[in-house]
Amino acid sequence: MSGFNDLTERLAQFAKERDWERFHSPKNLAMALIVEAGELVEQLQWLSEDESLAPSPKQREAVSEEAADVLLYLLRFCDRLGIDLEQAAWAKIAKNADKYPADKVRGSARKYTDYP
Amino acid sequence: MSGFNDLTERLAQFAKERDWERFHSPKNLAMALIVEAGELVEQLQWLSEDESLAPSPKQREAVSEEAADVLLYLLRFCDRLGIDLEQAAWAKIAKNADKYPADKVRGSARKYTDYP
Amino acid sequence: MSGFNDLTERLAQFAKERDWERFHSPKNLAMALIVEAGELVEQLQWLSEDESLAPSPKQREAVSEEAADVLLYLLRFCDRLGIDLEQAAWAKIAKNADKYPADKVRGSARKYTDYP
Amino acid sequence: MSGFNDLTERLAQFAKERDWERFHSPKNLAMALIVEAGELVEQLQWLSEDESLAPSPKQREAVSEEAADVLLYLLRFCDRLGIDLEQAAWAKIAKNADKYPADKVRGSARKYTDYP
Repeated sequence: MSGFNDLTERLAQFAKERDWERFHSPKNLAMALIVEAGELVEQLQWLSEDESLAPSPKQREAVSEEAADVLLYLLRFCDRLGIDLEQAAWAKIAKNADKYPADKVRGSARKYTDYP
Repeated sequence: MSGFNDLTERLAQFAKERDWERFHSPKNLAMALIVEAGELVEQLQWLSEDESLAPSPKQREAVSEEAADVLLYLLRFCDRLGIDLEQAAWAKIAKNADKYPADKVRGSARKYTDYP
Repeated sequence: MSGFNDLTERLAQFAKERDWERFHSPKNLAMALIVEAGELVEQLQWLSEDESLAPSPKQREAVSEEAADVLLYLLRFCDRLGIDLEQAAWAKIAKNADKYPADKVRGSARKYTDYP
Repeated sequence: MSGFNDLTERLAQFAKERDWERFHSPKNLAMALIVEAGELVEQLQWLSEDESLAPSPKQREAVSEEAADVLLYLLRFCDRLGIDLEQAAWAKIAKNADKYPADKVRGSARKYTDYP
């Protein structure tokens, strides 16, 4: 069993033990996910790009916790809809590889407004 | 090697092949992540909670792609900072278990404004 | 002078007095804006739609402050780019009126996934 | 009547004419608002801070429309809850002035992780 499944099962159990399933509609979980994404962005909003690459230990710890929160809600969201997140991620990478062929994109400054 | 590491390595290679590393500061990746989270929320904004639990095949496909996009940027973000996302997730679950003991939280409507 | 201009001028003065202008790039201000939007969403994430229409006085006060924060960063963002927000809003309403003619949209359930 | 009130009344009329009021719970409108904030962030995600201060005419137009969308949903949100957004903004500025006295904040690099 992959790490994705282990986490997903633990989160389902966690919600069940607390009687939280009734709050966990995909709509609500998407809201919770973006709230956590906002808390991640908050850690970086006044940093320069270079500063964001070299956070202090305290900033790094805060960022790490917010990243974890995003993942937890994302996994819970997918579980509630029966979406296999790991498989969806590989499918999206394949799609992106078709859309952005390395030999055409490489060195093209124009493209970067689009995707990176 | 876990599914997390495989995806992380593939994404690093993907960016390198396209010379996109220079755009991938944690600051920029956090922005890209919340943009994708917004696209996920967009799919659900006018649905009722019940409707969000039973999306059409087309909605489900769209939601699945947006969820994948969130994960891809989250993994890339963590990779750029040397954060082990899977480990961070387990650490956060342990912390949440301490903060929200099942026997105290269960059935407490007051608590739900806080976490679920 | 409209209320928009008075607020915009006060915010410019506020930033200048604190030597904060150097942090107020449009990029950074857009991040700050979405962080505040996330804090607004946080207030409503576990509420039902009906509950969100009848918040407690405490919830209403919190929501009111977060809404203000979104506006403050939005005004500051527009000021830094020389965008007249009030005029842009009227232009967007006119565009939406063309895009969603009342007589065609009215009663069409299909449309609601699109805009409302 | 201030510009805020004129816009708010026009938006209420706009929704009524299209029978969209039933979709406009504060919960849904907060989701729509953050989706638009995400579209604003999208315009700036791969730009440097300096580039974000000097957008192309096309980028500037796109940014202006997204900023307008954020305001429209923010006004509609406040209207549904009977919140006077303009008054809330002035109250928040007064609160911030107390919290961040200019003479103490000025030149303090430490503070910028907090607010700007």
